[in-house]
Amino acid sequence: MGTPADENLLDTKEIDEKSFSSTGQAPPHAHKVGIPPKQNLFNEFKTTIKETFFADEPLRHFKDQTNRRKVVLSIEAIFPILSWSRTYNLKKFRGDLIAGLTIASLCIPQDIGYSKLAHLDPQYGLYSSFVPPLIYAVMGSSRDIAIGPVAVVSLLLGTLLSDEIDYTKHPEEYRRLAFTATFFAGITQAALGIFRLGFLIDFLSHAAIVGFMGGAAITIALQQLKGFLGIKSKNFTTKTDIVSVLHSVFHTAHHGWNWQTILIGASFLCFLLVAKFIGKKNKKYFWVPAIAPLISVVLSTFFVFITRADKQGVDIVRNIEKGINPSSVNQIYFSGEYLVKGFKIGVVAGMIALTEAVAIGRTFATMKDYQIDGNKEMVAMGAMNVVGSMTSCYVATGSFSRSAVNFMAGCQTAVSNIVMSIVVVLTLLFITPLFKYTPNAILAAIIISAVIGLIDIDAAILIWKIDKFDFIACMGAFFGVVFVSVEIGLLIAVSISFAKILLQVTRPRTAILGKIPRTAVYRNTQQYPEATKIPGVLIVRVDSAIYFSNSNYVKERILRWLMDEEEKVKGDYQTKIQFLIVEMSPVTDIDTSGIHAFEELYKSLKKRNIELVLANPGPIVIDKLYASSFADLVGEDKIFLTVADAVAYCSPKMAEEDP
Amino acid sequence: MGTPADENLLDTKEIDEKSFSSTGQAPPHAHKVGIPPKQNLFNEFKTTIKETFFADEPLRHFKDQTNRRKVVLSIEAIFPILSWSRTYNLKKFRGDLIAGLTIASLCIPQDIGYSKLAHLDPQYGLYSSFVPPLIYAVMGSSRDIAIGPVAVVSLLLGTLLSDEIDYTKHPEEYRRLAFTATFFAGITQAALGIFRLGFLIDFLSHAAIVGFMGGAAITIALQQLKGFLGIKSKNFTTKTDIVSVLHSVFHTAHHGWNWQTILIGASFLCFLLVAKFIGKKNKKYFWVPAIAPLISVVLSTFFVFITRADKQGVDIVRNIEKGINPSSVNQIYFSGEYLVKGFKIGVVAGMIALTEAVAIGRTFATMKDYQIDGNKEMVAMGAMNVVGSMTSCYVATGSFSRSAVNFMAGCQTAVSNIVMSIVVVLTLLFITPLFKYTPNAILAAIIISAVIGLIDIDAAILIWKIDKFDFIACMGAFFGVVFVSVEIGLLIAVSISFAKILLQVTRPRTAILGKIPRTAVYRNTQQYPEATKIPGVLIVRVDSAIYFSNSNYVKERILRWLMDEEEKVKGDYQTKIQFLIVEMSPVTDIDTSGIHAFEELYKSLKKRNIELVLANPGPIVIDKLYASSFADLVGEDKIFLTVADAVAYCSPKMAEEDP
Repeated sequence: MGTPADENLLDTKEIDEKSFSSTGQAPPHAHKVGIPPKQNLFNEFKTTIKETFFADEPLRHFKDQTNRRKVVLSIEAIFPILSWSRTYNLKKFRGDLIAGLTIASLCIPQDIGYSKLAHLDPQYGLYSSFVPPLIYAVMGSSRDIAIGPVAVVSLLLGTLLSDEIDYTKHPEEYRRLAFTATFFAGITQAALGIFRLGFLIDFLSHAAIVGFMGGAAITIALQQLKGFLGIKSKNFTTKTDIVSVLHSVFHTAHHGWNWQTILIGASFLCFLLVAKFIGKKNKKYFWVPAIAPLISVVLSTFFVFITRADKQGVDIVRNIEKGINPSSVNQIYFSGEYLVKGFKIGVVAGMIALTEAVAIGRTFATMKDYQIDGNKEMVAMGAMNVVGSMTSCYVATGSFSRSAVNFMAGCQTAVSNIVMSIVVVLTLLFITPLFKYTPNAILAAIIISAVIGLIDIDAAILIWKIDKFDFIACMGAFFGVVFVSVEIGLLIAVSISFAKILLQVTRPRTAILGKIPRTAVYRNTQQYPEATKIPGVLIVRVDSAIYFSNSNYVKERILRWLMDEEEKVKGDYQTKIQFLIVEMSPVTDIDTSGIHAFEELYKSLKKRNIELVLANPGPIVIDKLYASSFADLVGEDKIFLTVADAVAYCSPKMAEEDP
Repeated sequence: MGTPADENLLDTKEIDEKSFSSTGQAPPHAHKVGIPPKQNLFNEFKTTIKETFFADEPLRHFKDQTNRRKVVLSIEAIFPILSWSRTYNLKKFRGDLIAGLTIASLCIPQDIGYSKLAHLDPQYGLYSSFVPPLIYAVMGSSRDIAIGPVAVVSLLLGTLLSDEIDYTKHPEEYRRLAFTATFFAGITQAALGIFRLGFLIDFLSHAAIVGFMGGAAITIALQQLKGFLGIKSKNFTTKTDIVSVLHSVFHTAHHGWNWQTILIGASFLCFLLVAKFIGKKNKKYFWVPAIAPLISVVLSTFFVFITRADKQGVDIVRNIEKGINPSSVNQIYFSGEYLVKGFKIGVVAGMIALTEAVAIGRTFATMKDYQIDGNKEMVAMGAMNVVGSMTSCYVATGSFSRSAVNFMAGCQTAVSNIVMSIVVVLTLLFITPLFKYTPNAILAAIIISAVIGLIDIDAAILIWKIDKFDFIACMGAFFGVVFVSVEIGLLIAVSISFAKILLQVTRPRTAILGKIPRTAVYRNTQQYPEATKIPGVLIVRVDSAIYFSNSNYVKERILRWLMDEEEKVKGDYQTKIQFLIVEMSPVTDIDTSGIHAFEELYKSLKKRNIELVLANPGPIVIDKLYASSFADLVGEDKIFLTVADAVAYCSPKMAEEDP
């Protein structure tokens, strides 16, 4: 292949230099379309694999180092704490201490509430704020993320688990399945990181996440109505869709609601929302909403204790197991049918948890301008959940609300997570009995005020403005979650995201180009109405790689442009189309189907006496045009560096033929 | 083409000097980036839907017609025979008659053989060459396709059906399920056509089809070994993978093979292959391989009849039911578990049959330069299979080998299918008893010689040359079919095809641009090593729409290019990067995630004191940049029409700052 092609190149080079000597820019020296140096197969594969799996060059720092240093770097890569702890100092610790205490005060009441979303006893929420943050602090690379149970994952896990096991009847099996799912969530996360498949989570689009989160928030808030209104009815629906829940709520209105509960819940919800509002209005008071939940818990618990409102039907927490996490290694199902079910639930929950954590990590890394290695983060998340599943924790991840508080409270490193973790342990060891009289309505109010922040109407409006298709994905996910279930919402979100990708590659855009007056620039005539067409020449730009999925469409679309154009100039001999220039700049790649389509296009054009001319094929495309000898078919001298050059080739001919 | 290059120069000199005079470093009439006129929402949706589902403008002919004419056109659109029959004449009929007789002689022995692949009695193959071609002739728009049962679909159907029902034990149920599958195959095809989802079949890439067909051909040929070697053993494997089949074959070598059968089979296989070779060498003798199968059947039948070789253990056809297709309407399962199974099998078989038919239709339409409406073809195919399923036919589609013969025999219209159909009916009515003594080995030989043509090694080599990833898909499908099963091969083919699309959108290419000497053109420095970088300015081109699936990658890749570049110029104050120009010509679209990524990029750059400059965003992108007010963030004056303009903005500044 090599030699004949080179010869051709030399042959045409001469001609081309001549032919362009006047068409080029000021100093006459026109350029051939470059053929990149032939890579060997191994290099080609290496490059593809590198860009796919190692796009972030994780081994960049290992270059030109001694072996000893490489070992140290590897250990540091797995445990980033080793590298940043060396420069740790008292000033940083001050920031971390304040941030850690703040997020601890926020996380304790939230944990107790979220564990109820997952249908687990309250202590499991606290357990999950002890072990996972410690593991993350050692292995994670984000400095701002706050680790622990989060609302959406708790809800998702609760829904998926209770589809399999009734938690009221078999709490023991239910809990074991939860640990199993957590274990596999961790394995999934670690595997994605280790095999560098982290990019898979990018397939859940931003729009879909906005919709999904909003829907989940509403679902969670609705679920809280039971606790908030003090409904005791055992008949309260286990479904999560809005219709079933509201039906249950109003069905119990006459005999099930408890006014004392509503009074307590409503007044503290107001307090929490006001606190939130203050924090939003003035960033200086970020700590107001952060400590408001703990204050609510303390005040309401004290109030119930002295008034003994629990005797009036106000539901209270009653009992939180004292002591730190017991081992749960032997509770994980490593065989039987629950292994498979736990695995499936774990994969879904693990992916969603990752999506949230990675989004948080990236957001704050951008704010402070440091780099996060997504795949390394996943390994850290995976490790923390695997260890968590063995120490009675359920799936933990980065919490958006707590991470934001952490950031604003001035955290410096992951030490703030360690501080939080210690506070949680102290709580578990000494303070849990004090939660006995905490009314459940307060927990409901805390969860409602927390999840409201997940409903991002501004983002939805922006999505509407920018991209209507994204908006459909967003609304699909939202309504799916709200009206059907969390899983269906998720499924809709993923499906629409994929459909969008497929649509993009199946129906790429094409455009007719015209010459912008007083320049040699050719642009889309729709975008630049002043751009003028060259008589007798049709210039089409294809805006995508040409692959099997779109090759036929591209071919037929080009022919349709041609037909449209021919219709317009019908009967006018002078402007009859004689050249079709395909501007290939945006065509980044072409495959065998694409080459076929071009061959067919060439034949169709030939039948109509129209010459096919190509402008600016990229390195990969030109390589393949030669490999398939399509370049020889069209004629190498009909492949130009720019549209202007191609037009220069077509125009004089026109002039000759015109009388 | 004709005009020597030097002649061009003189003519173009004047024009080109004008057109290029303004593209220099600082264009005097710098053009603003055009913002396309705002479309309203309805129009936007309409355009998207039109391009997705009605890309071929099926209603083009209906424009500006009277209502009466529109009705006529609609009927003609559904039954193209009404429009082409008006210009039908005797000369055309002559061509069709010869072609029809030729393909009939080819199809009769093939049909009998293929029905065995589908584990059905021989007459069902003939039935399927009677009704479906008639329906197609009335509704189809391809002039060259020859309709009937084909090898690959027969094999696929046989495999899928016998996974559900054992055809040796329950032939009745098996047949009923076959009709059910055929019915749903037709429904699937028609539905794809009616809902204009025909583009879905484009997702099976050319490479995957080449591999799948090759694998299926080998599988089919292996299956024929049983008949070819005269193996009677009931223990012959029902699996189709090469290992099981060869194991069965050699296991029976001692007692199961029949030398008389092998002798007959081998000699006629040689005859058929020689005939094929002659036809290939000289296109004039295309009829030699076309009638060779019928001649083999006649000769071998006669031979067996006079020698009574069937008493020596030569297996013969024995009985083909006489008479035309009986009705099978009430044999289709419209309820019960077989409904679901039949539906699933039908969807798969229908899609594969369509893929083949559409590929054939397109190929020949290109050769004769007429247009085929893919979606209309699908409706015709669907109708013919639905009617077929009610008249004892199994899935029929376009046969590549017979279509090629049809084309070369000079067919003019679908009338050749009608001629073939009539010959088949006559065969069914009068000649079937004569097939009694036809040895099965001959049918095996005919099938082997037919499917050999499906193994397209040249295509595989070309795929290897053009695109290594395509080659993997091709080989994956091939080995999947050969070593595992037809379904697995198909699954591999589809998965790899999808993986390729996803990879493309997840990891788009980016390139560093440089200025091509003595031009104002900026191109990929890898493709044009002579292109020079502008000191202090980094120009990056992104080669894809920026969507959620790649937005993070794109952002990080741009920052990595920047880091690489900064490393190179480290310490050199004069060439410190101060501007990052993102050339956006190939960026055809951007979504909310993409805008986010750019905002993050902007922030990161700002922290490093680097200005972000955009060049040539397309109509949709510029629209969204404004909608999201990102354009205001970067500054409208930093968005340029061309890279040259952008560089002109950056360079003088550089000059000022340098002492």
